[in-house]
Amino acid sequence: MTEAAAIPRYLEDFVPGDRIRTGSTEITEAMSRGFAEAYDPQPIHLDAEAARASMFGGLVASGWQTLAITMRLIADTKPLGTTPMIGIEIQNLRFLHPVRPGDTLTAEAEVLGTRRSGSRPDRGFLDLTVTTRNQDGMPVVIQRWTLLVPTRPGA
Amino acid sequence: MTEAAAIPRYLEDFVPGDRIRTGSTEITEAMSRGFAEAYDPQPIHLDAEAARASMFGGLVASGWQTLAITMRLIADTKPLGTTPMIGIEIQNLRFLHPVRPGDTLTAEAEVLGTRRSGSRPDRGFLDLTVTTRNQDGMPVVIQRWTLLVPTRPGA
Repeated sequence: MTEAAAIPRYLEDFVPGDRIRTGSTEITEAMSRGFAEAYDPQPIHLDAEAARASMFGGLVASGWQTLAITMRLIADTKPLGTTPMIGIEIQNLRFLHPVRPGDTLTAEAEVLGTRRSGSRPDRGFLDLTVTTRNQDGMPVVIQRWTLLVPTRPGA
Repeated sequence: MTEAAAIPRYLEDFVPGDRIRTGSTEITEAMSRGFAEAYDPQPIHLDAEAARASMFGGLVASGWQTLAITMRLIADTKPLGTTPMIGIEIQNLRFLHPVRPGDTLTAEAEVLGTRRSGSRPDRGFLDLTVTTRNQDGMPVVIQRWTLLVPTRPGA
């Protein structure tokens, strides 16, 4: 754990334009199949023949798995240090390009801004644009997250 | 599989106000832990002591798992019959209430409307409001989905 990841971060610590770049993860065929069997058991994710006949022309990973892997990639960077990442809202989420088994995903989050709560001085909202890309650098999902983040005690 | 689930459904088959009600699924502690270890390894999901000290007062499931379970509940009803459910956009997603291991989730989707593609006469967009509730009937997540749905051939 880096030094910044070992301490809590507060709303005041984020500035518009701050960027978080993640590592990368391959969605293996086994991972894709395992997720689809549990959460999204559609033929386009599980049946190679049916997937070939679909608009995708072959197996694709569940979009929900792409989102879950995006969370993992970002969580691993500990952008809030020891402060929990508590999502309260997602806006403008677009699936832009299919993700296929064997693709390698990476993500980037950019701080859009912060807003203090009108009713609770101990907390506020951190807005981020999150972009997930494949190994060719092509965006596969974009979304806007709003996280609930505590304000600095005594600030 | 019911009769309606064994045939493809097309954009013209959906009318505003149509509702889909799902079965229910318990998020067991093992399911919550397994998902969190793979996709969202935060102490609020994995470490009972850290979770007790958090704003949640105890372990909570990953919001991404609540979303994945919502997909599974809806997919199991085969709302599009044999037509694949292809999500292209999610709007206004709000996490309203924590989901705890042991909670039982159910979901409901309501058709908001359909829109034909301006550029491709063979397809259009189906807008749905999706609400996920816990065993007390309390909404835990709401979201608006836009699915890509083929128009009826020759229509």
